[in-house]
Amino acid sequence: MFRTEKDSMGPIEVPADRLYGAQTARSLIHFAIGDDKMPRSIIRAFGILKKAAAQTNFDLGLFKGDEKKLKLISQACDEVIAGKYDDHFPLRIWQTGSGTQTNMNVNEVIANRAIQIAGGELGSKTPVHPNDDVNMSQSSNDTFPTAMHIAAVEELVHLLIPSIKLLRDALDKKAKEFEKIVKIGRTHLMDAVPLTLGQEFSAYVSQLDQAIKRIEDSLPDLYQLALGGTAVGTGLNSHPQFAVKVAAQIATLTKLPFVSAGNKFAYLASHDPIVATSGALKTLACALMKMANDVRWMASGPKCGLAEITIPENEPGSSIMPGKVNPTQSEAMTMVCVQVLGNDAAIGFAGTQGNFELNVFKPVMIHNLLHSIRLLADSCRSFKEHCVEDNASRPGITPNKNQIEKYLGSSPMLVTALNPHIGYDKAAEVSKKALKENISLKEAAVKLGHLTAEQFDQYVKPEEMTRPK
Amino acid sequence: MFRTEKDSMGPIEVPADRLYGAQTARSLIHFAIGDDKMPRSIIRAFGILKKAAAQTNFDLGLFKGDEKKLKLISQACDEVIAGKYDDHFPLRIWQTGSGTQTNMNVNEVIANRAIQIAGGELGSKTPVHPNDDVNMSQSSNDTFPTAMHIAAVEELVHLLIPSIKLLRDALDKKAKEFEKIVKIGRTHLMDAVPLTLGQEFSAYVSQLDQAIKRIEDSLPDLYQLALGGTAVGTGLNSHPQFAVKVAAQIATLTKLPFVSAGNKFAYLASHDPIVATSGALKTLACALMKMANDVRWMASGPKCGLAEITIPENEPGSSIMPGKVNPTQSEAMTMVCVQVLGNDAAIGFAGTQGNFELNVFKPVMIHNLLHSIRLLADSCRSFKEHCVEDNASRPGITPNKNQIEKYLGSSPMLVTALNPHIGYDKAAEVSKKALKENISLKEAAVKLGHLTAEQFDQYVKPEEMTRPK
Amino acid sequence: MFRTEKDSMGPIEVPADRLYGAQTARSLIHFAIGDDKMPRSIIRAFGILKKAAAQTNFDLGLFKGDEKKLKLISQACDEVIAGKYDDHFPLRIWQTGSGTQTNMNVNEVIANRAIQIAGGELGSKTPVHPNDDVNMSQSSNDTFPTAMHIAAVEELVHLLIPSIKLLRDALDKKAKEFEKIVKIGRTHLMDAVPLTLGQEFSAYVSQLDQAIKRIEDSLPDLYQLALGGTAVGTGLNSHPQFAVKVAAQIATLTKLPFVSAGNKFAYLASHDPIVATSGALKTLACALMKMANDVRWMASGPKCGLAEITIPENEPGSSIMPGKVNPTQSEAMTMVCVQVLGNDAAIGFAGTQGNFELNVFKPVMIHNLLHSIRLLADSCRSFKEHCVEDNASRPGITPNKNQIEKYLGSSPMLVTALNPHIGYDKAAEVSKKALKENISLKEAAVKLGHLTAEQFDQYVKPEEMTRPK
Amino acid sequence: MFRTEKDSMGPIEVPADRLYGAQTARSLIHFAIGDDKMPRSIIRAFGILKKAAAQTNFDLGLFKGDEKKLKLISQACDEVIAGKYDDHFPLRIWQTGSGTQTNMNVNEVIANRAIQIAGGELGSKTPVHPNDDVNMSQSSNDTFPTAMHIAAVEELVHLLIPSIKLLRDALDKKAKEFEKIVKIGRTHLMDAVPLTLGQEFSAYVSQLDQAIKRIEDSLPDLYQLALGGTAVGTGLNSHPQFAVKVAAQIATLTKLPFVSAGNKFAYLASHDPIVATSGALKTLACALMKMANDVRWMASGPKCGLAEITIPENEPGSSIMPGKVNPTQSEAMTMVCVQVLGNDAAIGFAGTQGNFELNVFKPVMIHNLLHSIRLLADSCRSFKEHCVEDNASRPGITPNKNQIEKYLGSSPMLVTALNPHIGYDKAAEVSKKALKENISLKEAAVKLGHLTAEQFDQYVKPEEMTRPK
Repeated sequence: MFRTEKDSMGPIEVPADRLYGAQTARSLIHFAIGDDKMPRSIIRAFGILKKAAAQTNFDLGLFKGDEKKLKLISQACDEVIAGKYDDHFPLRIWQTGSGTQTNMNVNEVIANRAIQIAGGELGSKTPVHPNDDVNMSQSSNDTFPTAMHIAAVEELVHLLIPSIKLLRDALDKKAKEFEKIVKIGRTHLMDAVPLTLGQEFSAYVSQLDQAIKRIEDSLPDLYQLALGGTAVGTGLNSHPQFAVKVAAQIATLTKLPFVSAGNKFAYLASHDPIVATSGALKTLACALMKMANDVRWMASGPKCGLAEITIPENEPGSSIMPGKVNPTQSEAMTMVCVQVLGNDAAIGFAGTQGNFELNVFKPVMIHNLLHSIRLLADSCRSFKEHCVEDNASRPGITPNKNQIEKYLGSSPMLVTALNPHIGYDKAAEVSKKALKENISLKEAAVKLGHLTAEQFDQYVKPEEMTRPK
Repeated sequence: MFRTEKDSMGPIEVPADRLYGAQTARSLIHFAIGDDKMPRSIIRAFGILKKAAAQTNFDLGLFKGDEKKLKLISQACDEVIAGKYDDHFPLRIWQTGSGTQTNMNVNEVIANRAIQIAGGELGSKTPVHPNDDVNMSQSSNDTFPTAMHIAAVEELVHLLIPSIKLLRDALDKKAKEFEKIVKIGRTHLMDAVPLTLGQEFSAYVSQLDQAIKRIEDSLPDLYQLALGGTAVGTGLNSHPQFAVKVAAQIATLTKLPFVSAGNKFAYLASHDPIVATSGALKTLACALMKMANDVRWMASGPKCGLAEITIPENEPGSSIMPGKVNPTQSEAMTMVCVQVLGNDAAIGFAGTQGNFELNVFKPVMIHNLLHSIRLLADSCRSFKEHCVEDNASRPGITPNKNQIEKYLGSSPMLVTALNPHIGYDKAAEVSKKALKENISLKEAAVKLGHLTAEQFDQYVKPEEMTRPK
Repeated sequence: MFRTEKDSMGPIEVPADRLYGAQTARSLIHFAIGDDKMPRSIIRAFGILKKAAAQTNFDLGLFKGDEKKLKLISQACDEVIAGKYDDHFPLRIWQTGSGTQTNMNVNEVIANRAIQIAGGELGSKTPVHPNDDVNMSQSSNDTFPTAMHIAAVEELVHLLIPSIKLLRDALDKKAKEFEKIVKIGRTHLMDAVPLTLGQEFSAYVSQLDQAIKRIEDSLPDLYQLALGGTAVGTGLNSHPQFAVKVAAQIATLTKLPFVSAGNKFAYLASHDPIVATSGALKTLACALMKMANDVRWMASGPKCGLAEITIPENEPGSSIMPGKVNPTQSEAMTMVCVQVLGNDAAIGFAGTQGNFELNVFKPVMIHNLLHSIRLLADSCRSFKEHCVEDNASRPGITPNKNQIEKYLGSSPMLVTALNPHIGYDKAAEVSKKALKENISLKEAAVKLGHLTAEQFDQYVKPEEMTRPK
Repeated sequence: MFRTEKDSMGPIEVPADRLYGAQTARSLIHFAIGDDKMPRSIIRAFGILKKAAAQTNFDLGLFKGDEKKLKLISQACDEVIAGKYDDHFPLRIWQTGSGTQTNMNVNEVIANRAIQIAGGELGSKTPVHPNDDVNMSQSSNDTFPTAMHIAAVEELVHLLIPSIKLLRDALDKKAKEFEKIVKIGRTHLMDAVPLTLGQEFSAYVSQLDQAIKRIEDSLPDLYQLALGGTAVGTGLNSHPQFAVKVAAQIATLTKLPFVSAGNKFAYLASHDPIVATSGALKTLACALMKMANDVRWMASGPKCGLAEITIPENEPGSSIMPGKVNPTQSEAMTMVCVQVLGNDAAIGFAGTQGNFELNVFKPVMIHNLLHSIRLLADSCRSFKEHCVEDNASRPGITPNKNQIEKYLGSSPMLVTALNPHIGYDKAAEVSKKALKENISLKEAAVKLGHLTAEQFDQYVKPEEMTRPK
């Protein structure tokens, strides 16, 4: 059931069916903390960078072996990239702050898998050695930051941005659908002057457009790769061309414009790009929380709330109140937003805590960043599918036109249209009189002698109040 | 216009009309950062502790001088306590992280003021020396934490707790006033089963009661004084009885049960009691934000919102929409709550950053704590005076009974009262049918044959739904 | 492979081997967001409260069935409590904000398991109905908060507090072991006056003692149970004695002093006790981060750091620098502390966001709280085992006496012992002269004529500087 | 001493020597909360936008009056811009969440000042009316966000960015000065492989360069102005060309490329650009905190710390330990960084809390943003002047070459240079043997028979380890 693996600390037992080696086994003993494992996207990123490094070492004539040995490593990397050995990466976030143990976990699994393919003995380090071959020209200190950037970019580009766009497009479709629906505006939660429901939705679209732009603007920071800096940023024990060439390899493998970072010292000792990216995610969370709150408030009711829109009924809402339907997509979304702000707080704090040549809060930083990305991506898609958009079996967000019109007709703030004609002070008199005496604005205006009924009708036209003139 | 003061770095010019000395003058040059000055309550606390220290030194026979000299210092301290020389404490929060410069500012002002009273020459350090006399048996490292605790306790006990109680009592009065007003409940913002408006307000009262208790529970932590620990917590250069006696003096001067801390090392190197107290303030902020949000939502309208209550009109609400009245007390309150959460984030972070014998984030910690206390105290009082309570010229929060009754009658969730009689699934049918066909629950129930009209009337009585039976 | 389950929305397919029903199946479709599942401790807590509720309903004569049926439910609950069906609770944190779907997941699994025991047909709701029987006298709105409190208390009492105590005791043992080792103190990171290594460790012990006390002080808040409030806090559809009796049942089952909350409205609409508890955890994190930082700084080196202590070598430290040993337990611990502060930010924010009768951020709040508890508990135990304490195969934290003595002898701050004899200004002269001319303090003092060599030796005794005299 | 001013709520007394009117006076009564006043830069921004609005109204033929009246307003605005009436803007941050009262404060002061210039009676609203003239075509809801952006941009461009650049240049000068000083690297606080002191400083420079870039990238967001949206974003009561023209006027007045925002609804209802900018400031704070911590650790000692550099002695460090000098600039800087993270938490939270057409957390958001900008700007300048750079009277940061060389020679991690020659495992053996037997690496390597002394000397050259080869 077990085999013996060895590292510089000595021998240790490892489950016979696992590809990892001594250092992973040690880490499982010393870091039995919580359940949070190193995310799949980080393992994948490591697979990519190990493959790129092996190829680069080979191209530079550094690789200790022939093309056949390179292929062994390369194939093992491909399998790790594809997720075939995810069960062999059991390490926690709460380990060495440089992620050294995960780097070694990857080195060990790739080496052992390559050995396995070659028909060798697991743990023999022959024909492939985890340090001397798989980790060649590298250090945990430059591989882990590189994996952080690769994973973050892939998740942002392939997962989050497309999800935001889906939601953005669904909202935009609704904005256009609603562009003629004039409704009362609300500021300070109080009745204000009118706008269209489409204009309200256009603001969400605009915020998401900006959010996408901010996330895209954070990418160039993340395209910078630390690889080639080795242990402290100097590039000790690496070939002068290694850094640039390996970044190019990674760019080729990922089809993303990664480059070698200008100042490697900064990219080991700090993670400002991660902090900045989290700032962009937090800003997205602000936009989403506002939108999700608006939707649930507008859908509140059915009888005792604002009830301006109807949202899909996806599930029974209450275990005690029969027939209750709740804005559950908004609730999941706003909880996600809260988590993203908490994650951002952790990331920022960790980002301040580097010392000298290394920031040893790498795992906690990338854990929180990838968590935020995943939650935001999934909840944007969920909100779009299960709340905003129409589908074959039911409509999505639908305006309650009767209620919208009822509100519009009753709002005292239409008086604002009189400002340019009778001035603010007299308009205020009209509004107050109408409310106090429970009469219409027109009646109040005429009673006060500020204008005639005809003038009132001419000046106060809600649909014309939704734009400058 | 200037005189020369001297410290171990050499001579420096000081404005002739200021009582502070060389170290304060240096700090003004080196720390011209922001506008945030050391709060008044810290200066007052320093006055108290310096007076207590001088008396204790005298009682222990350590004081270098006679009772007349003690009186000089004591009188100077009294004047500082009373706030007579606030203009002589110009130093910023953003200085030495131990608050050393503020300790020296206090030593200098008290020494110079004592010299002034004695008719001596400012800056002469005769007959009172800022270090050898005013700072005797002390270090910045034990005085500043002591001042932090004294200031925090005084502000909590004399300012914040009374303010919360005022608000709590005003809300409690309203809760009793509203105890018979049955209204619709809202969960997930959706119509739910009924309760009384008084029950809603009773929750705010309950939350504030608990908040007061939590703040009171944080006081014993803060009653622990570091004084007597001197530079690193060992009490070097202090008399073995100094710590206990000076704490007793401070207790006498403040009429608050301060004691000497058990482990002085902990109280210099960390500020867990400040972090814990901020946690209690944050919890209060949660309670206040929820209450202030409820109030503004219930007051929303007047025509297109929930409009269940009316709140006082304190000011014109809009520079463009005449007659608009906004829930501005709620807005100030919720902004304060947001700030308190931000301040708590700063305090927690700073609280982690001690090294060895000292945490050098003392000024930023106490600045944020005192800021939170002040804002919470002022906004509780403001909200109570200008929103909740009735006064001679206008009522405070007032229920809109018509609206409340209208909502109650229309809510489909009254169907919940049928659960014990016909089961959840059938009750759900009734509710859905009623909403779909826009008929009453009773009609739907009878149509579906689940019960008779008489049974419905017997089972569904809103006022009886506000308690178990 | 599938069977059909039904709820008020209609029929839906469910995997044949799962005990959950229609509402759980719906939630899996609508909330495919992230990987965070409802924690095991919440499921366990639900098992406890469902068992207590069934028994209480039975005792009050409300239960629809005989003792045999009660036993079916009770046995199913026991199995859920024991964790036998954890795989049947697949729902995410990111669902309805009231946790309704998890409440229904529990109702469904318990009902189906009871049906299974009785030999009935899964999904038939006969002889046990998920709503009418398992959820009897309850609502999600009072069960979920109840489960939050039960889970939090069990994890605090059975997991976290014992872990802190283990670490505290291990540190205390070291404090006693080190009580005679005089070493240089450091304030502002700069050489200061001496103390003992034992005194330094005593501060950690003192901080942990206070942290335990604060956590214990947060328990009474959490012993308050919302159960009996049903949908909005009024207790509608529950027996007047249900709330008190069910809390007593829960107390019996858990052997913990749970009681029925005084004001149920507050406990549904807000979660101040969760926010307050998180504040106590954050304060613990401050203490742990400071301690873990001190340990790694004191262990820094081996040649170019402070090197005052040695810590165990648990694993190879670097994939590139052979023989490097890193303070990895400190790193895991400080990353945990950072996460706890992030979690606290999320909890506080969520705690402000209740509206009217419900706070719909329940899952995100308890998720973060239980995460913090687990991480703190595990890392305290890990730090104690793998860093602080000695074990059979190696010592734990060990002082490097040579280095400690070397530093002590060289520190210019021993001059502080001269203050009471020659005053601050002259002592400063001595210290500066010694540093500038690279001579000993004694030589400098004598050269300056401030005292004789004999006086110097009499006044400056490091071991006597570690206490008042 | 007092005069009577009037608004739509009625008459109120105002101090005779103040230019503000009724609404400001009311706000002082209702919002006596804390000491935080609306920042000077917001008042200045309002002056700018009011001047631009008046001119634009005039150009569009909307202005009610002749060029002489325009000049009255314009002159009053110029004086407000110049800060001449700062004492007339007494309102707090903790007011209406839209900043309405500050908008009115500005309207009142400008109107009254214009009246004063014209020789009219204060409070007469003749010849200049605060609403009808000064606030023409505007609402608080579009002016306050506009003022937020103008103030933020001016402070970023004119204050913060230049300060960062000064610090950056001073550090860059040191980086070049130190480029040949080879020193030991430290990762995990442990001895690592060498680099140059210049390389360490180059990382700070690189981080600041990136920080400047991120702040500059946040400017385009802030150049978008909400003005022209009026009350809810529709532009009601404004001329169709007003928005674009007034933005152009503001651009002219400020010489900054402000433009009219595309979607006005988004810019009233949310403040994502403020949140995003705060994220950039937080990232800067991470860079600064890391640098300031490195500096104080490298300066630690003088005898019992790392002591690799010396920093200027600006003030006496201790009130009890004579001759102590502390890294006080680092302490002020790191406290500022902590505050910036706290401020960012407040800003993010507030940024999520918009509802419908308005976010009513505007004052708290801009207060925190401007606070962060100011503190960062001042502390960058202070750190540069009083810590980093040399000046006529003393050097700035200075390397302690003896200590640096001593460390370098003793480090066991030089063994890393052997990896490419003898492999990781054998190199680890060498390092461990050397440490254990307290012999040199060379001796250990030769003893173990892994290489000859000559080979060792050839492979291990610290200066060559500071770059790839």
